[in-house]
Amino acid sequence: MTAPLHEARATGPGRALPDTQQGMRRRNLARVMHAVSAEGSLSRAAVASRIGLTRAAVSTLVDELIRTGLLEELGPERPGRVGRPGSALAVSGRGPAGLGAEIGVDHLAVCVIDLRGEVRARIERHGTNRGRSPEPVVEELTGMVRQVVAEAEREGLWPAGLAVAVPGLVARDARTIVRAPNLDWHDTDLGALLPNDFPLTVDNEANFGGLAELWLRPDTPRDFLHVSAEIGIGAALVVDGSLLRGTRGFAGELGHVPVHPDGPPCVCGGRGCLEQYAGEEAVLRAAGLEPGGDRVGLLAGLATDGDPNVRRALREAGTAFGIALTGALNLLDPEEVVLGGALSGLAPWLLPSLESELARRTAGPPRPVSVSRLGPEGPLLGAAHSVVRAVLDDPAAVAGRG
Amino acid sequence: MTAPLHEARATGPGRALPDTQQGMRRRNLARVMHAVSAEGSLSRAAVASRIGLTRAAVSTLVDELIRTGLLEELGPERPGRVGRPGSALAVSGRGPAGLGAEIGVDHLAVCVIDLRGEVRARIERHGTNRGRSPEPVVEELTGMVRQVVAEAEREGLWPAGLAVAVPGLVARDARTIVRAPNLDWHDTDLGALLPNDFPLTVDNEANFGGLAELWLRPDTPRDFLHVSAEIGIGAALVVDGSLLRGTRGFAGELGHVPVHPDGPPCVCGGRGCLEQYAGEEAVLRAAGLEPGGDRVGLLAGLATDGDPNVRRALREAGTAFGIALTGALNLLDPEEVVLGGALSGLAPWLLPSLESELARRTAGPPRPVSVSRLGPEGPLLGAAHSVVRAVLDDPAAVAGRG
Repeated sequence: MTAPLHEARATGPGRALPDTQQGMRRRNLARVMHAVSAEGSLSRAAVASRIGLTRAAVSTLVDELIRTGLLEELGPERPGRVGRPGSALAVSGRGPAGLGAEIGVDHLAVCVIDLRGEVRARIERHGTNRGRSPEPVVEELTGMVRQVVAEAEREGLWPAGLAVAVPGLVARDARTIVRAPNLDWHDTDLGALLPNDFPLTVDNEANFGGLAELWLRPDTPRDFLHVSAEIGIGAALVVDGSLLRGTRGFAGELGHVPVHPDGPPCVCGGRGCLEQYAGEEAVLRAAGLEPGGDRVGLLAGLATDGDPNVRRALREAGTAFGIALTGALNLLDPEEVVLGGALSGLAPWLLPSLESELARRTAGPPRPVSVSRLGPEGPLLGAAHSVVRAVLDDPAAVAGRG
Repeated sequence: MTAPLHEARATGPGRALPDTQQGMRRRNLARVMHAVSAEGSLSRAAVASRIGLTRAAVSTLVDELIRTGLLEELGPERPGRVGRPGSALAVSGRGPAGLGAEIGVDHLAVCVIDLRGEVRARIERHGTNRGRSPEPVVEELTGMVRQVVAEAEREGLWPAGLAVAVPGLVARDARTIVRAPNLDWHDTDLGALLPNDFPLTVDNEANFGGLAELWLRPDTPRDFLHVSAEIGIGAALVVDGSLLRGTRGFAGELGHVPVHPDGPPCVCGGRGCLEQYAGEEAVLRAAGLEPGGDRVGLLAGLATDGDPNVRRALREAGTAFGIALTGALNLLDPEEVVLGGALSGLAPWLLPSLESELARRTAGPPRPVSVSRLGPEGPLLGAAHSVVRAVLDDPAAVAGRG
């Protein structure tokens, strides 16, 4: 496939095709699924009024979705409502599911979520992947995938696709890691290494983290900048509810925005990039600590204990973030900045200097900076949810499978 | 209206509404108009094969578009083609038209283009608007608008809307200038000052310049960064063929990306912004020249003559552009950077240092930097074309008017 499922369908299936009855039906099936999914449960009449179709038209669509196992009937709605009681509909807790995986620098994780968004199976393993070649890492991940899928199948779920979050740049084919400097992988075709039992989507961890924020937080704005860090610093740019990917799929490289153009050289070939001031290794170095182990936990612990070197290092990192984000806010004008991923655990010590730098450098009311509540779990959840979204966006495409 | 016409319709009319026969018909009318417009002239059969509908369906749509004066028949196609000759269709050179206007710091301009994109009437006046209050400037512009419209009406054209390019930030209502520092205007509602004979769209000059580049250059990529300057420095970010506007409509403020974070203070409240190194006034100052008059012409003339101070000033401005663009390319990953507006006239002296700075700071193959062939004409043409695009995007909306 040439683009991740959730993207190719972001503006509806068949957008570029002439309108046909068949295309209308598919889009209306998606509207029904999204309406029920958004509310948890809904009567046919409520679906009809929400999506602006007649109740007869909605009943035909609903019947098809029940027949193919994507919706289920919960029985009559609770009494006390006005009018004749209708049978409430809910998204099915069986059938197609989202399979998400994450290859981190220091961990592997796999989970299955059902169409309702509930995590139904999950495994995680810690241990560094730095310096390991792709084959054994992906083999280990594949074993975890099989284990989680077996567990999900026992509950009547089958994965409609596999989405993998990785700490690196991913080509627009959504399967090739172009480079993941902190794993020392490049031009790695995960599609060739993973089992081909499921449609595959590979994406950068910051992107999946940003999408998780968009989909799972109830009050997320449609335009925001999701800043994320594992070892490197990345960002997801969400514009009008969609991810901005860039021509090659490399957008969001906030870590390589110049902060001090004559500063220290960076792995990217530039000088004085944000990563040289606010990347984990730069912060550890500035705090006089050795790299390795659970660095975020170490920094957070020492900062909590009031270690002056760690607090100063994080304050300076926050200032560097503020300078780089000033440029990003001037270019993109998002509604909000969200600190996600591992960064969220260091927010209490980064935020004050970051926010004061932003306020000092930008005119008008300051853009709010918030901290993700999903934290380091964001990328894995975003990956699994991307598969579920693809099912909701085009239920007809999975109806015959399983 | 809450958004510029060309934007509200960017993804097709009724995108958020349930699919209906009526919506399908409107979208298919748009597909016919765009197909004919893209080719100059086309037979019914060619339209049908291009948009994937039956010839009978296309004939019904074409008949409606001819009846409402948006398409015309050119008579039988030239002989020598295979098969029975069909009557070639063309977009009408009469009827609805695009009315564009530009309020520059040093000039006013108004033009009318027909649906074929040809300029049919145009007036321009030079003289500074700096320090003038909005009322007399808009009054002068209104006089020019009436003159151009009268001229166009004599040729059977009627404006389907008025689009105005301005050198400042425009609110998302597409009528209020939030601030135009080089005019010293702020919170100026152009909608209240301009005649309400036509639907109005006001937008930043860099945005209209970027849209002109997208619509009028035959080989323009779908993702590019259009850098523009009149007195300030702005950019239009075109992503997948649409303008990225930002939450408040303020995206593209490249001039306020920090280049040297401890540099000189800027009007925006920040320090060391790009405008402090590469804005027209900074370049004039660095070259030891007085501001005022045709500054771009002056700089280009002196640079051509080999003036070492001017050449050095432009070289240093190019370096500053390279630093700011490094950040923008890392964030956005566009396919190309286009230098437009007045900047295009200084490109020969800016480009070498700009490109070498980019090459030095970014990994991978360098992003191409090109120079707009529309140059300073871009914003006015983009404004007029935005009205024409709105007609092509929803021909049914204008069919009853005129």
